[in-house]
Amino acid sequence: MKTFLDCIPCFYRQALEASRLACVAEEQQKLILDELASVLPSIEMNRPPPEIAVIIYSIVNRFTKTADPYKALKDRSTDLALKIYGRMKEMVINSEEPLKTAVRLAILGNIIDYGAQHSFSLDEEIEKIITNFSKSSNGSYAVFDFSVFQRILKKSETILYLADNAGETVFDRILIESINEIYGRGKIIYAVKEIPVINDAVLGDALRAGIDASAEIVSSGSHAPGTLLSVCSPEFLEIFEKADIVISKGQGNFEALNKVTRPLFFMLKTKCSVIARDIGCNIGDAILFYKKKKKRREKIVKNDNY
Amino acid sequence: MKTFLDCIPCFYRQALEASRLACVAEEQQKLILDELASVLPSIEMNRPPPEIAVIIYSIVNRFTKTADPYKALKDRSTDLALKIYGRMKEMVINSEEPLKTAVRLAILGNIIDYGAQHSFSLDEEIEKIITNFSKSSNGSYAVFDFSVFQRILKKSETILYLADNAGETVFDRILIESINEIYGRGKIIYAVKEIPVINDAVLGDALRAGIDASAEIVSSGSHAPGTLLSVCSPEFLEIFEKADIVISKGQGNFEALNKVTRPLFFMLKTKCSVIARDIGCNIGDAILFYKKKKKRREKIVKNDNY
Repeated sequence: MKTFLDCIPCFYRQALEASRLACVAEEQQKLILDELASVLPSIEMNRPPPEIAVIIYSIVNRFTKTADPYKALKDRSTDLALKIYGRMKEMVINSEEPLKTAVRLAILGNIIDYGAQHSFSLDEEIEKIITNFSKSSNGSYAVFDFSVFQRILKKSETILYLADNAGETVFDRILIESINEIYGRGKIIYAVKEIPVINDAVLGDALRAGIDASAEIVSSGSHAPGTLLSVCSPEFLEIFEKADIVISKGQGNFEALNKVTRPLFFMLKTKCSVIARDIGCNIGDAILFYKKKKKRREKIVKNDNY
Repeated sequence: MKTFLDCIPCFYRQALEASRLACVAEEQQKLILDELASVLPSIEMNRPPPEIAVIIYSIVNRFTKTADPYKALKDRSTDLALKIYGRMKEMVINSEEPLKTAVRLAILGNIIDYGAQHSFSLDEEIEKIITNFSKSSNGSYAVFDFSVFQRILKKSETILYLADNAGETVFDRILIESINEIYGRGKIIYAVKEIPVINDAVLGDALRAGIDASAEIVSSGSHAPGTLLSVCSPEFLEIFEKADIVISKGQGNFEALNKVTRPLFFMLKTKCSVIARDIGCNIGDAILFYKKKKKRREKIVKNDNY
């Protein structure tokens, strides 16, 4: 996906929020915004947003001298999500359709996103996921390609699962465990980012969430907040090409992969007008979207079981 | 009020929205954002936001070759508001406290703001003002200095009313007419901007709203989206100093005037975190805030009749 002009104000907001999280003085924050103003105009807009995000966050890291300003927040996200792990497991087990429940929880977990959102109250949002879960089961999914997901999953041996954010990883774990429990066999590979960028999950975050007991964790090689194939490792690219099914979490991965040729399942909460416009839904919608091999569906229609 | 770092992403968003309203091609929109990036870093942050807004909108106007990109929207705002004028008058007349109802309507009319808001559906919002009016009477005002407003108004001969946006002018007309009807005497001066900036009301907008039958319309001399005293005309400054009461509408006027020494009544809907933080309320709150002569109240408490 190319970068839209609407992304430009958002890049400044992200730089400001990241520099505040790194606790640098206001003068430094201003210098970061000024530096951004000096580089952004020359960046080509046909590059996907995660590629530009790399530039933004490298400026922030250079000025703040922090490689991972979101570390504490990521740990807290994971720990809070782990606190509701048991309740989520119960919801899945007691559900009439455990896989569907696990998918919906995995999508809702994508709310834990410090890049796309203006402000975000972690405790409240995580609690809301649980309390609002039953409400969201009654038709609030703008796109929910669940039947085709179930059909393709059933015949898949190798499943590649592209992680998005730390904390959301715990929700992913619920889905991964459900897939293992339901289909028994198969091999799930959980791909995280190579180095920290925003609150995207890296190896340590996946381990903290306890993913390693149910899936093989690999690095995609991407240092961007999205699985940009142009920067991924050859080993990862081979997995990506050969996997029977690819589950891609979050906006960053959608921005990076919505034009690739292979089929993919995108699971995300839409958080900005650019993505919502591209998918054909509203901001805040929860999405399970199947991108077919030949061409992606341009306009989404409500479908499936919801 | 000084400009905060949070204003910077907002300036880019405003420039983008204004350039889109002026219907220039995407390439031109990008050039406008690039030009902004070249000038913003050197602008001193201790200047109030409306002063910086002048620079932004002059860039937009230069590139779009339009002196008033918001003209059509302003006319539509006024016409739509005039359509509910009769219903608002009835609400005031049938109210137990006509002045209070008129004040509340005048504040709610401040929702018609194309500078501060990301997106804005005029028809919906204007309709909502009417339908939600009774709801908002039950305590949703974070600050409502109505008793002191009524007390000072009662003994005032000269009333200066600082307009904000076109369309909102019709709501102002309701309040101005109510003041005239209740207090009979006195002289109300309605001050508009000198030249078009965003959707701020100029002389033509006030006339279209029918203000001239109930108040004398003057220009403040300000070309900024706020009554910046540093650029106002000497004639206006004399009125401003001598008026027994000043009613200041909207965020732009708050940003321009919240540090001046004379007492003022601010009526506004808060639309951004910077203003909300400064007042001590939440985004979306409706405010009637009395700024006393000596020093402004730093922290707001719920008070008065709500």
